[in-house]
This record gives sequence, structure tokens and C-alpha cells, in this order.
Amino acid sequence: MNIVVIGGVAGGMSAAARARRLNEEASIIVLERGDYVSFANCGLPYHISGEIEDRSELLLHTPETLKSRLNLDVRLRTEAVRIDREKRTVTARGPEGEEELAYDALILSPGAATVMPPIEGLPHPSAHTLRTINDMDAIIARLSPLGEHPRAVVVGAGFIGLEAVEALRERGAAVSLVEFAPHVLPPIEAELASYVSGELARHDVDVREGTSVQAIADNDGAARLTLSDGSTLDADLVILATGVAPDSALAKDAGLELGERGAIVVDGYLQTSDPHIWAAGDAVQVRQRIGDQDLLGPVPLAAPANRHGRRAADAAILGAERAVDQVGDATAAPRVLGTAIVRVFGAVAALTGASRRTLDSLGVDYVTVHTHPADHAGYYPGAEQMHIVAHFRRSDGLLLGAHIVGGNGVANRINVFATALKAGMTASDLADLDLAYAPPFGSAKDPVQMTGFTAQNILADLMPVWYAEDLDEVRESSLLLDTRSAGECARGMVSGSLNVPHTEVRERLEEIREAAAGRPIAVLCASGVRSYLATRILREKGFEARNLSGGAETLAHVRSDWAD
Amino acid sequence: MNIVVIGGVAGGMSAAARARRLNEEASIIVLERGDYVSFANCGLPYHISGEIEDRSELLLHTPETLKSRLNLDVRLRTEAVRIDREKRTVTARGPEGEEELAYDALILSPGAATVMPPIEGLPHPSAHTLRTINDMDAIIARLSPLGEHPRAVVVGAGFIGLEAVEALRERGAAVSLVEFAPHVLPPIEAELASYVSGELARHDVDVREGTSVQAIADNDGAARLTLSDGSTLDADLVILATGVAPDSALAKDAGLELGERGAIVVDGYLQTSDPHIWAAGDAVQVRQRIGDQDLLGPVPLAAPANRHGRRAADAAILGAERAVDQVGDATAAPRVLGTAIVRVFGAVAALTGASRRTLDSLGVDYVTVHTHPADHAGYYPGAEQMHIVAHFRRSDGLLLGAHIVGGNGVANRINVFATALKAGMTASDLADLDLAYAPPFGSAKDPVQMTGFTAQNILADLMPVWYAEDLDEVRESSLLLDTRSAGECARGMVSGSLNVPHTEVRERLEEIREAAAGRPIAVLCASGVRSYLATRILREKGFEARNLSGGAETLAHVRSDWAD
Repeated sequence: MNIVVIGGVAGGMSAAARARRLNEEASIIVLERGDYVSFANCGLPYHISGEIEDRSELLLHTPETLKSRLNLDVRLRTEAVRIDREKRTVTARGPEGEEELAYDALILSPGAATVMPPIEGLPHPSAHTLRTINDMDAIIARLSPLGEHPRAVVVGAGFIGLEAVEALRERGAAVSLVEFAPHVLPPIEAELASYVSGELARHDVDVREGTSVQAIADNDGAARLTLSDGSTLDADLVILATGVAPDSALAKDAGLELGERGAIVVDGYLQTSDPHIWAAGDAVQVRQRIGDQDLLGPVPLAAPANRHGRRAADAAILGAERAVDQVGDATAAPRVLGTAIVRVFGAVAALTGASRRTLDSLGVDYVTVHTHPADHAGYYPGAEQMHIVAHFRRSDGLLLGAHIVGGNGVANRINVFATALKAGMTASDLADLDLAYAPPFGSAKDPVQMTGFTAQNILADLMPVWYAEDLDEVRESSLLLDTRSAGECARGMVSGSLNVPHTEVRERLEEIREAAAGRPIAVLCASGVRSYLATRILREKGFEARNLSGGAETLAHVRSDWAD
Repeated sequence: MNIVVIGGVAGGMSAAARARRLNEEASIIVLERGDYVSFANCGLPYHISGEIEDRSELLLHTPETLKSRLNLDVRLRTEAVRIDREKRTVTARGPEGEEELAYDALILSPGAATVMPPIEGLPHPSAHTLRTINDMDAIIARLSPLGEHPRAVVVGAGFIGLEAVEALRERGAAVSLVEFAPHVLPPIEAELASYVSGELARHDVDVREGTSVQAIADNDGAARLTLSDGSTLDADLVILATGVAPDSALAKDAGLELGERGAIVVDGYLQTSDPHIWAAGDAVQVRQRIGDQDLLGPVPLAAPANRHGRRAADAAILGAERAVDQVGDATAAPRVLGTAIVRVFGAVAALTGASRRTLDSLGVDYVTVHTHPADHAGYYPGAEQMHIVAHFRRSDGLLLGAHIVGGNGVANRINVFATALKAGMTASDLADLDLAYAPPFGSAKDPVQMTGFTAQNILADLMPVWYAEDLDEVRESSLLLDTRSAGECARGMVSGSLNVPHTEVRERLEEIREAAAGRPIAVLCASGVRSYLATRILREKGFEARNLSGGAETLAHVRSDWAD
């Protein structure tokens, strides 16, 4: 059996290794156009920062180790230039010329390529992408002679962009970060992104949100960037982290079916429209299940690439029926959740599943929950607060997505949400989870559970909520009742609101009734807990009361001008 | 509406608080026989150690704060001495005498009490339990005058016992730990418990496993303990952490139905056999779902107590139909997983779901998987290895239980397993999880996923396994093939085994065939990964080969005498 794998990182390498484990006799050729195979591309920023001191740590394998370990024939600097599906051959162009390779099974893992932003003056010698070992080497080579405080600009504040910012600051660079979207980390909800931009600012990163780079030009041996707001930035190094697109040209030329944004269409077993060709990784079309709908497109993440490579090899060698992965709906694209995490200095941001924007675009009816729990019991030292935004389907409480910013414990809880999401859990299921509790690790009511409890209360109409982004409207229509202590309110409150500490609500009902004058009451406190108690009292007493989801903590991150 | 709650910690306090939030008009009386209400009982060891410096941190509420916040009538030092179900009254005996309290809804949360072990000479002034603030105060009062190096004995190496050991060592005590079961932390699998006992030994704890205390006697102002092996231990302080039993005497006297080990029988909404009485916490009977079977009994854990208290109040006030928790099978006992975690110095041990012993007792046909993954990408600094033992049903790969010992990342992965377990996930579901990956937080193939992959390979018969506990038998019947490097083997290997490094298996097949002489081949390496590759080669070449689950790493923790 002749197996050809195109692409020697993540998906391709997982496929090749699995193929060998399943079939000792097959010829397995891996074509990798770059200079390295099976390298740790997610680790590149951490060698730039110096955290990973030894560059060789990133080179997990060489053609030699893969030969001795797995009897793979790995060919570096070798590009697949043509697929002849009729003849079942791939034309490979390497250092020694072209060769035609016959295949019984072809596995494509070409990955994604940086989408060059429309910046006048690109390419420019100061401007680098950060996708390969060569990119990393070039960035380090550029930084090294610049002394201790080079000037760097990172374009794009997604996951890679933020990791690049952190790495460059660790090296002592002065860093500007330019993001076209209204906030950094565009996939995460806005009220959480502002924690990230705050952390960036605390580490002296010059953050420019809602701004694009329009031109790059030479300026005295460095680069001068002109931004959309007319300002300029001078830089010794520019990193372009503006997003990627499937590198599916070869698949397209071969006439394979492509889907959204040029991604290769595959079934649940990673089979393409050609029964002899499978594909995995950043170039394939996957689906995110959101409620009852599937969102199709490429999702460039390392973890799905790896496991889909494994499954593709299973299907190619054993056949889909005997593959070890049981895929529910084999004809649909492989399902992913889009779980992702990033560390930004002392902050950790993570998400899984759908965002508000996606849900709105799909017309899903949902409620949003904001909580601010501590990562472990508050009475045990070192508890760190995290901030959770989670969405649930209104009709049945189905979890749709979760976003978290915090420190310790964020990775833990996003994994719980991701597992719950895959399982199709509801708010009630989250409330009934049995998570690990001892004071150093959690709370008797875990952050995920608290989020489930809160969602239950909203969905059961025990605690209707109002949202920070509706402040102006709510101010017009309602009495704002601030249930924090007088001392807290003295440091700032929404103008025109009435302060009744939550422990005084019972005895001051008449005062509240008079102030409301028939209007509904919009309750708030610092985090939403005390105001929940007040909301319950008021509702039990016949008032139309709603609680501010996430309290002033969230409000302050949505509206910096909230308090007088 | 008159609501009486018996017990003012965890379950009882959750119930009382929820009841108020649901009903502003009700009279809610909480009877607590102790001196404190709503205290952090899980935090007690950490004040003994000094980590929680301020004792008041453990006192989350007082009757006064609960009055002002929730309008609860909390009565300390008040015992419920009798329930008259006909009249619907509770007789409360407090500092000011007896009072008869009428109820429309009664919620019982009496908790559990330490089971006094059959030790001659108990009670003894040196011997304390560690369940209440008073216990903690007494322990600290006893330790304080003893100087820097008091001698302590902890009896029972369960969760509380281990936390007590750590706390006493932190205070400088010389500590002996006596455990009747064959290994410390009896609920966890033996091959993981030995990591915990190793960590205890590294911290100079004198561990006596498979040993019981038979007598305690005065000895020069201290205590002398006589152990089952005839040895003696002198101690200034003895902590009894030998397990608890439901404190269900009141419920029993009232004629409520009791179940396994005297636990109060409740339905999914925590209703007892009396429709006006609910119960939650350590005294109720819950069920652990294991495959298709339910295991009934009390499970004394804080997290279920808290959420069941909440649900009981929902059911008592709103009725089961309107309770926010949706309970699948309302007539069955509430379901728990028994998820638990403990820190023992630098080690973290955790489990969820079934153990081998439970599965064997229920006659479940299962496979066990051992993995030793790192908590995050190996190329990023600071990765810590964890050791996972997971059980899956043989027929369909259903996850049945998971046990982990390690450091960083254990809490994260046990929570993923617990969520997967609740969802009824299989090995294939674990393999297809989308967990958060960035180098500081995880791996492209997460520990849980690796465990799923490994289970898939075993279940699909791609990688049949043998287990460390069968070493003697395997040695008799098979060729032991050690696929580690010659250097590793030189430091010790199973006598009589053949060393062929995994990269040499392909070219040394004939040598292996001759050595096997028709016998099956039992392959091993350090962790099970390289030997997996070798096993696959051998099986593809027609050998009957099996891989040692968990490799020499696990073997060494099952059989300290494994290597020559």
C-alpha cells in the first residue's frame, strides 16, 4: 500500500504516524515543503521570549528519528505541485527535481497561510509572519542586533498576535498592538476583552483598537507605519498576525470540492470528495454545532488538526467502518468547538463554543450569564477572581458557549465548559456537575456550577436580568437601585440611582416604592450577588425588578463612563 | 409558611438561604446544635497548618449576618430532639429550654459523625476528631504548649487524614500515619496510592499501611498507641480520621425510611418518605451510576451537600415540578459521582466515578488504561507528569471512572473526566474532546484525550494490554520484551526479559522470534508509548504481542521488586 501525506506538521504528522502504527508494510511518504518536520509551531513565541531557552526543544522530530521510529520517508523542502486523481499520483518537487509518486491513499494537511492584509508597501523587510521555525529565526535575527529596547509593532490582536506581544515585551521591546476590530482578541466577548487590554496596558503595551495599518514605508533603516487614524508608528520589527486562510490551492487544482472560505470539504472521517483522498488540519472544513444549526468553515487549531490526522489515517487504512473513532453523523463535517486559550502576561483568556455575534447571526434565542467567581474557596489564600460570560438557549437552557478571563483556574473551567458543550449539557446539567473540591482547588459551588445556577434562575424567571450595554435605555425607563454599601457607592455610582444596601431593602420598601413611582426597578451591586438577593425580595413583594447581569464589575468593563 | 431546617452547615445552610430567596414571607428557623453556623469545614486543616492565618476566615456567617441578609432565624447550640410527623412539629432543645416548632416543610441536614474505631482506651484526652471549629480549636490548643516538635499520630489516611498529616507537618510535628487498609487513600487505585505514600515519606511522615490501632493508654502525660503489628507509638496528639456515618438517629426515630448504612432515603428532589420532609447532605442516600447499575449509599462530600440543599428548598417551596433543577428520574436517589481531590504536600490526588474494587463487586466487564502524560506541552518549561488510571466498559467504551495523581493540571483533568462521566461519554468521546491548548496550559493531545486514544486502541484490539499485577503469570507464559534503550535497561529490568530498543524491533524480528519460541510476547517500555509502537510492529508481523499498561512507571509502583 502506498500512502502519501502532504504536510509534515500537526495533522499530516499525526496521520503519517498513525498510518504506520496501523500498517507495518505500507510505503509512507511525507512531503514537507518547509525545512522542518513535526515542529512545535505553538511554541514559537516562547522561544522568542526566551522562556523556551533551547531552540531544539521545538524540533520534536527529524526525518531521521521518524525513519528509525516509524519507518517514514519524510522529504523536506519538497512541495506537492500536482495531484493526478485519475492516475492516483502526486508530483513532488524537491531539491533533486520532480518525482511522480503513486498513491493508494493520499492525506492532505497543507495547513493555512497568513492572509496578507491590504497594507501598501508590503512585503517589507521589517515585516514578518510567525508561523514557522524560519519565521521565528528571522524575527530573532532581526531583534538581536537592535539592542535592549527595539520598537515593535504587532498587527492583529488574535491569539498569535497576543502571544507575540507578550514575547516581545519579555525581550524588552517597546510594543504597539494594532487591531482592526473594535477590541483585542476579537473572538472573545467585548466585556471580557477589556480585561485583556487592561493587562496589556499595565505591561506598557500601546494598544490601538479599531485601527488598521494602511501603509508601511522605509524610514531611516526601520519602518514607518501609517494607521487608519492618520497617526504613524516607527518600528524596527513588524509582526503580521492578521489571520490565516486554508492553503487549499493544490486541492482546488485537483478538482476537490471546496467549501466555506476555500476549505476542503470532508466527511466525518475526513474523506474528501475523492474516495482515495483524505484531508485534516487548518485547510479542511469543519462544523461548529450551535444549538440545532451547523456553522461550516475552517477552524485553524492544533488540537483538532492532530486528532483529525489520526482519524484520517484510521479511515484510509482500516476503512471508516473499522476506524476506532465512532462518528455519529459520518456524512457531516467533523465537529469542533473552537476551544482556545491564551496567556497574556498575568491574564488568561479562553473560550469555547459560540459568541454573541455568532448566535445573533444565526438567530438563536439565548440568555447571557455573567459571573465573577474565585478560582478556589475564598477563605483559602491566593484565590483569583475569574470573569465568565456564558450563553444558554432560552427554550431549554442548552449551553451554547462560554468565555472566561482570569488567572489560575481558567484552563480548568474552560475545559469543563468544552466537555459540557460537546455533551450537549444544559444549565441544569452544569448545576448538577460533581467537580473536584478542596480549598486549594475549587469551591463547594464551583465557578461552572455557579454559572449554571445563575442561568437556571434567569431561565426560570426567578431572576430576570438587564445588561450593561442597555444602561442608557434602562436609565430612562427604570429606577436604578444600587444595593451596595454606602461606602462603595460613595466611590462612584450611576447618576440618578437610589442607594439602598441589600440588607436594608426589607425595611425601606416604601422608600423604594415611592422612588420607583410605578417604574420597573433595575437592581445592581458589585458582582450581581447582593442585588440578586434584593431582586428576589422585590419580586416577592410584587415589584417588577431585574438584576444587572455581572453587576458593576461587568458594567465598568462595558462602559468606562458608568459612574459619576 | 413555616420552614424548619435542621443543621446549619453546607446542605442545611444552602437550603435555608435558597428557601428565603424563593419565599420572602416564610418563617425560616435553622437549628444548629454546634456553636457555629455556616463555617468552612473543609478549611479546618488549613488553619491548623497556619496557611489560613485568620480563624475568622472560616466563619462565613453568623446568626446576625444571616438575619440581616436573609432574615433567617438561626439558633445555635440548639438540638432537634424529636420530630412529630403527625402534628408536623420539631422539638428543639436550646440554651433556654425546649420549644415545639410547627413546620409546613422540614429540611434535614444533620450531616455525618465520625465512626469511632474499636480502639481500647477511647475516648482519650489526646484523641481528637477534626469535623468542627471546636475540634480545630481543641487541636490547636493541645499543640500550642507542646513546643516546636510535638509527636502526632493520625489514624486514617483518607482525605481528611491526609490533610491533617500535611497540616501537622507544616506546624513542625513529627507525624505517624496509621491506615488499616493496604494503602493510603483507600478510595484511589493502589498503583497511584504509592505515589502518595512516596510523597509522604519524602516529607518524613512515618506511614504504617495495613495497620490498625488497637489500644491507646496514658504514658507520662501523653498517649501510647499499640498497633496491630505489636509496635507502639507515643503521641502528644492523636487525630481520628477513620471515616464517618450518617447522623440519622433523629430521622430514624421519626420513622423515616433509611437505606444503606443508615442513610436517609430520598428521591431525586431530596424528598424523604414523608412528603413534608426533605433531606440533604452527608446523611442522605445518593446513587452512583456505574454502567447500567446504581450503587446506593451515603457519600459525604461538600459539593453535593450544597447543591442538594438548594434543590431540596426548590422542591419544598416551588414543588418538584417547578424546581429549577431538571431531574431525569425523579423517583431515583440523587446522582453523584464521588469526585474528590486532595493535596498532599507537592502531590495532588483525585478521583471520580468507579474504582476497580467497585467494578469487580458489580461484575462489570471493563478495561483499565494507564497513562503518564505531562500537564502541558513538554517543550514548554515546567511540565509536570501526571499518572492516570481510567476504567472503560469493554462492550462500548463507556467511561466508568478515573483516578489521577500528579501536580499541576490534576484538578483540571479530573474535572474533565467528571464532566464526561456525568455525560455518559465513551473513550471515543474523550478522544474527540476539544480542550484548551496553548503551551503553558495543555498539549495538542491533552492527557484526557491521550487516555481516550489509549482506551480506543485497547478496545479495538489494536493494542491488547497486560497489567503490572500479572507480572508473575506473564513471566511464566510469555517472552518479556523490554523496548527501552540499553542504557535504561542497564539500570534495572525484569530478569529474563529481552532488551530490544523499539527502534531496532524491525531489524531484529528473527531474534525476537527465536527468543519467543512460540510464546506470546509481553512488551514493555518506561511509560507504554515506545512499547506500543513495538507492539504494533509485532502484531502486524503476526506475533501475539501485548503491551504493559502504563509501562515500567506503573510496574514500579505495583511491584517495588520488579527489576533486577
